[in-house]
Amino acid sequence: MKLNDIDTPAVLIDIDRAEANLKKFQTYADNHSLTVRPHVKTHKLPRFAKRAVELGAIGITCQKLGEAEVMADAGLTDIFVPYNIIGKAKLERLANLNERITISVTADSEVTICGYAEAFAGRHKPLTVLVECDTGMGRCGVQSPEEAVALAKLIDASKGLVFAGFVTYPQTGAVEANEAFLAKAETLAIAAGLDPRIISNGGSPDMWRAHEVKSATEHRPGTYIYMDRFQVAKGAGTWDDCALTVLATVVSRPTENRAIVDAGSKVLSSDTFGMEGFGRVVEYPDAIISSLSEEHGTIDLSSSKNKPEIGDRIRIIPNHACVVSNLFDSVILISDDTVVEVAPVAARGRVD
Amino acid sequence: MKLNDIDTPAVLIDIDRAEANLKKFQTYADNHSLTVRPHVKTHKLPRFAKRAVELGAIGITCQKLGEAEVMADAGLTDIFVPYNIIGKAKLERLANLNERITISVTADSEVTICGYAEAFAGRHKPLTVLVECDTGMGRCGVQSPEEAVALAKLIDASKGLVFAGFVTYPQTGAVEANEAFLAKAETLAIAAGLDPRIISNGGSPDMWRAHEVKSATEHRPGTYIYMDRFQVAKGAGTWDDCALTVLATVVSRPTENRAIVDAGSKVLSSDTFGMEGFGRVVEYPDAIISSLSEEHGTIDLSSSKNKPEIGDRIRIIPNHACVVSNLFDSVILISDDTVVEVAPVAARGRVD
Repeated sequence: MKLNDIDTPAVLIDIDRAEANLKKFQTYADNHSLTVRPHVKTHKLPRFAKRAVELGAIGITCQKLGEAEVMADAGLTDIFVPYNIIGKAKLERLANLNERITISVTADSEVTICGYAEAFAGRHKPLTVLVECDTGMGRCGVQSPEEAVALAKLIDASKGLVFAGFVTYPQTGAVEANEAFLAKAETLAIAAGLDPRIISNGGSPDMWRAHEVKSATEHRPGTYIYMDRFQVAKGAGTWDDCALTVLATVVSRPTENRAIVDAGSKVLSSDTFGMEGFGRVVEYPDAIISSLSEEHGTIDLSSSKNKPEIGDRIRIIPNHACVVSNLFDSVILISDDTVVEVAPVAARGRVD
Repeated sequence: MKLNDIDTPAVLIDIDRAEANLKKFQTYADNHSLTVRPHVKTHKLPRFAKRAVELGAIGITCQKLGEAEVMADAGLTDIFVPYNIIGKAKLERLANLNERITISVTADSEVTICGYAEAFAGRHKPLTVLVECDTGMGRCGVQSPEEAVALAKLIDASKGLVFAGFVTYPQTGAVEANEAFLAKAETLAIAAGLDPRIISNGGSPDMWRAHEVKSATEHRPGTYIYMDRFQVAKGAGTWDDCALTVLATVVSRPTENRAIVDAGSKVLSSDTFGMEGFGRVVEYPDAIISSLSEEHGTIDLSSSKNKPEIGDRIRIIPNHACVVSNLFDSVILISDDTVVEVAPVAARGRVD
């Protein structure tokens, strides 16, 4: 089956580029003695999770239990869920996963830790917990190394729990502040007699600087497997590294400089990350995807010398690959523009 | 089952509010001799499509063929797809639908019309086609009433096609310009001996001004059934009309004025429509959902006297209800905060 046989809109994954991206970062990490624990949120496909492990990853990262359940069912055996797991229903699911595979989670509060302790005190297999640190991102995480170590002590003292280290999702660009926080937490933890054996750093934008965070033992890149317009803007990869593209058809050319395609926010999402436009049109790189409604993408061709006709098919590199994966029930795996397989996005929509 | 038994994040639909919203606009339209053809994109549920028809709607609107196929399978018999249907595969699907139910589509170019004519010339049941007009929105549609009538003539002259009228999705607030365009197209069409029996206007933001577009014979509201933060901002409804809320749990309180919930862009989407924040927290209306990542919602509590604790559950009215429906495999139908049913979102993800 050729690309011409695929109806639009569709998500195409160039498996050769994905493979190259996985290998390139694994090699970099090996060279810097960092373990790799890829985040599956970008692809949500067991095949790529398994492939990363075959290539040397120590395990995988999932953001929610629902994703971890899909990946465990598919045969992945070492999963980190860097999330505060709250509430009886989720703690029960976590306990079930902990019986089946090697799983670890995070906490950034006493409330979360007490929940874990209550759920695991009576179980034969303890739960591995890392303390989440806000090293600049402004999302979850304790605000100081001292707080991090206080929670580490609480985990260590709790029956049913094992303290394993510290984790962050850092602010893009703030490498030094990230390292300073983590290094201090590590030092204080060791001084307190604890063993922070894992210091886990994350993110694709700064992944080629991961070795500068010297205290980190592992890195959790996500988008690196597909790359996207934001990662290229941040210098993490090039256009030729982008493995995910959206295939779309021009359905209208209302004016000289306007084209409408059949890919809107239900395909590309509204993520901009502060950039102008909603993606890069591969065949018309000077065109600007200026607005989206749910089923229409509006393209401004003012700056594009060449202009597509109605019925022409174009490929779009989205601003953010991960959210595009989440919008499709299946993606088209391709190699040299030939269809290899239509793959169900197994962990799509797993928000809990 | 009570709300407390529902794990988060989840989408709750208050069926009493939805029913009231359907009835209120149907009554308004009846009073103004407008037919109603609701857009199902907001709910994507056959039950609400059918209910609108029971209450008096003439049929429904779907944006893509995939949605129309789901609704036809569920028993809906009159569907308008205001889209240029392009390409052999889709024209074949359209022809199949046209054999089964009453369906109509749009065109805004000769290319689209020629495609329809080629696909339908040899069939016993003709295809009903309306001409799409860009009356100010800047998306699809011809740019002038004269162009509209030229295409109307082409449809009328094409074997296998029946010209039925004009359609627009208008620019919010531009009621007068919308009416001026449509009225002129109608006049010119009649003068040319054509019968523009349907003049179809759309949108929820200006739906209570639908009667001011005097040439329109029907209106296609979508979001009106659920309402959302944008519709309230536009004055189309009140907070008490909002039928769709997201149930979320506070998973972290890293600082005095920051709360993190388990609903991020995979739940709320990144749609802002130019507003600050990503939704309204019902219990903390002064809080601002200041940023989203895929699985985290960051809430700024600076202006909120009351502040939630870790583990508290909150309800969020999203900026844009339609895209939230598209992110969930199922929604929880509630009445008086009691669960009535867990309903699969049958037309979710139908982007083609």
